[in-house]
Amino acid sequence: MATAPTLEQALTDQAAQRDAHLIEWLRIPSVSADPTHRGDIQRAAQWAMQRLVQLGLKAELIETSGNPLVFAETPPVPGGKRVLVYGHYDVQPADPLHLWNSPPFEPAFVDGNIVARGATDDKGQLLTHIEGLAAWLATGRTLPVQVKFLIEGEEEVGSDGLEQWLPQHAEKVACDVVVISDNSQFADGQPAITYGLRGIVAFELFVEGPASDLHSGVFGGAVLNPALALSRILASFHGPDGRIAIPGFYDSVRALSPQEREQISQLAVDEGQLCRQLGVSELFGEPGYSVLERRWARPTLDVNGLTSGYQGTGSKTIIPAVASAKFTIRLVPEQQPEEIAKRVERHISAVAPPAVRWRLERGHGAPGMLARIDSPSIAAASRAIERAFGKRPVLIREGGSIPIVARFQEVLGADCLLLGWGLDDDRAHAPNEKFRLADFHRGTRASAFLWEELGNVC
Amino acid sequence: MATAPTLEQALTDQAAQRDAHLIEWLRIPSVSADPTHRGDIQRAAQWAMQRLVQLGLKAELIETSGNPLVFAETPPVPGGKRVLVYGHYDVQPADPLHLWNSPPFEPAFVDGNIVARGATDDKGQLLTHIEGLAAWLATGRTLPVQVKFLIEGEEEVGSDGLEQWLPQHAEKVACDVVVISDNSQFADGQPAITYGLRGIVAFELFVEGPASDLHSGVFGGAVLNPALALSRILASFHGPDGRIAIPGFYDSVRALSPQEREQISQLAVDEGQLCRQLGVSELFGEPGYSVLERRWARPTLDVNGLTSGYQGTGSKTIIPAVASAKFTIRLVPEQQPEEIAKRVERHISAVAPPAVRWRLERGHGAPGMLARIDSPSIAAASRAIERAFGKRPVLIREGGSIPIVARFQEVLGADCLLLGWGLDDDRAHAPNEKFRLADFHRGTRASAFLWEELGNVC
Repeated sequence: MATAPTLEQALTDQAAQRDAHLIEWLRIPSVSADPTHRGDIQRAAQWAMQRLVQLGLKAELIETSGNPLVFAETPPVPGGKRVLVYGHYDVQPADPLHLWNSPPFEPAFVDGNIVARGATDDKGQLLTHIEGLAAWLATGRTLPVQVKFLIEGEEEVGSDGLEQWLPQHAEKVACDVVVISDNSQFADGQPAITYGLRGIVAFELFVEGPASDLHSGVFGGAVLNPALALSRILASFHGPDGRIAIPGFYDSVRALSPQEREQISQLAVDEGQLCRQLGVSELFGEPGYSVLERRWARPTLDVNGLTSGYQGTGSKTIIPAVASAKFTIRLVPEQQPEEIAKRVERHISAVAPPAVRWRLERGHGAPGMLARIDSPSIAAASRAIERAFGKRPVLIREGGSIPIVARFQEVLGADCLLLGWGLDDDRAHAPNEKFRLADFHRGTRASAFLWEELGNVC
Repeated sequence: MATAPTLEQALTDQAAQRDAHLIEWLRIPSVSADPTHRGDIQRAAQWAMQRLVQLGLKAELIETSGNPLVFAETPPVPGGKRVLVYGHYDVQPADPLHLWNSPPFEPAFVDGNIVARGATDDKGQLLTHIEGLAAWLATGRTLPVQVKFLIEGEEEVGSDGLEQWLPQHAEKVACDVVVISDNSQFADGQPAITYGLRGIVAFELFVEGPASDLHSGVFGGAVLNPALALSRILASFHGPDGRIAIPGFYDSVRALSPQEREQISQLAVDEGQLCRQLGVSELFGEPGYSVLERRWARPTLDVNGLTSGYQGTGSKTIIPAVASAKFTIRLVPEQQPEEIAKRVERHISAVAPPAVRWRLERGHGAPGMLARIDSPSIAAASRAIERAFGKRPVLIREGGSIPIVARFQEVLGADCLLLGWGLDDDRAHAPNEKFRLADFHRGTRASAFLWEELGNVC
């Protein structure tokens, strides 16, 4: 009878097989936005469940109002931590197809990367946790924590099924910490743990003037131009220095602690390089904060789209009947979407000229997230990542929003560890999406070490 | 041998035949914007020339870079005035066809109107002068003025051919006064002489930020949002009171004389009725001026269109790479398009935030027009109109721009009399365009009387 391998041996032994699993899963075009892929959605969910069953987990498909959830768990560990791994098996549409260098659902190896839709977002990153567990289980040792998997199929289309299911099944997925790998390292060669996300609240503002477009010669001077009125309102959202000028907007925003500012300032940002990357001559934002602080830890307001009047070539001399703007506010975790929406509405009431009508429509909203950075879980994850990547991860926040993270915190009372194995240039949501194979394997090792490290902190 | 009829008799005798001529001309679909109608353009020009030849005028078709001009003239009158009648035989496209109650090129009699594309703009109105001359000539009396006709076929597409031809043939069309009927009476039952038009200068402003759209979560706080920067610039064009805030903008604007203000104030405007017509709760504009003064005799700036980022349903969380606005300024005749364009550019330079790039594109421009209101020509036209309409015309300005009018003034040194026989609700450029038959015949009478009255002022 052969001796059971060590964890290191198992991780090495399983490498080729791990690639094969990744390829198999990526071949299934589980595009959630396109109803013609409904069968593929089912196949991708089945694939994940079968893989977890292979590992000996108790696994099931759970029907929801939308696409099924995959749930699986290892046996409870008395006195041990419970970890919930969350991820998604659905992928973005592959369009525009002609911009792909190889077919999106025929995974290709290019320059040390695997290129396919879903490679980094999220099949490849999620699979590291399944494969990390596989290596652990191959050692024959007892897993020191209980690992649960909750894998959904609607992340790219709003997570409705999971959102409805979660509050009624909090006990089933109860855990001490949620682990998610669906984002990026800080930089190439610098792994990170993300402990904070911004929230979001989306709006569309319509400013209405005359009942129909008017001739700007005949009626110019008679009525207030809705596009000009909209511009005035939008311009009133900020002071000229870039600070948001909506009254009370910063009331609930906590000042960044000197420690956190110090920690963020340690992270090198080459502003010249960032300007070149973004194609701007200078960076801009709220005064008194560094660009990382502004992107991660300060609220911002951005217009996402403007629409009014004539948009074709040449000119059409009209006073447009309507002008509208889509805009989103990124919130710090202390700010609640409801509260901010009220302040925005009140501000517009105060500044909108009476000669036009206006209407503010609310879009989606989700609060931000901020995990304790001195928690034993973060310390354990940090050690696991350092062992796998050979470099201590930095602690970062991110400017984006992951609504389900706030829901986990609210419903389960559990902090989330966002362990991104991807890179900023992985082209998630774009043609030629990729995931570096070295990061796929390092992520798997970090995951395997994580179960061990989390066991040590109990 | 029958005695020659009096002018009154001739006008009455020719009425039925006059309608027939109008119908004949309106049947020709001379749409200048559509190359498939090139043959119809030729037919419409030929029709006008033949009709003028029938009346005994020396008439010719003149080739231009575009559609032909029709030129015709009566013999010179030694010591008499020369009148140039300008008009156009081309028409707007008829789309959308399904909104017409009868085919656009099969003239229909509806409620005392003739309904067809070109009825009011401009075949019907222009024909009054040809038919007015026909009545005169039927009297056998000597015409007391020389009448020249210059009829173009590109008015609806920019008048390029005429613009190029005119400066080189100023002598051919030399005149003391230009008569144009291509606009409207002040109100139903209240004829008018338009002695002023506003000029125009058109712009498109592009504000450019990052090289491509950015994720507003990841990069919100890093760069200035181009749509917000554009809003700031647009908002800076006016003070909150509606006065234009571009430095020096009003420098060359002459104050309205007390006489002119008095005269404008005599014209009844029911502001409540105007609000209801336009669908606004209140009128708005530069403080210190009535709504007619603002529309006719004060400069205005209107945004005609806004374009930026995402315009579909729902939200897309981006910082758009570009935002743009089309805007036009209506000028008073004292303001030159070039001068104002410079001031606009200088103002944008001063207020545009340095964190974005911007580019201002110039569109078309034309100065306004202001004729002397105490001229003998206006007095003559006023008497002619009063005789035909039974009501003294009011003197008005218009807010719109007719670029060729300024060109006539510049090249020929001649004032224009704008004698509009149409009504505001004639639906020029829209489906079911109409011209009231009573106004067609009254306009013809006014034209016939005009040759007489202009003869009297020599």
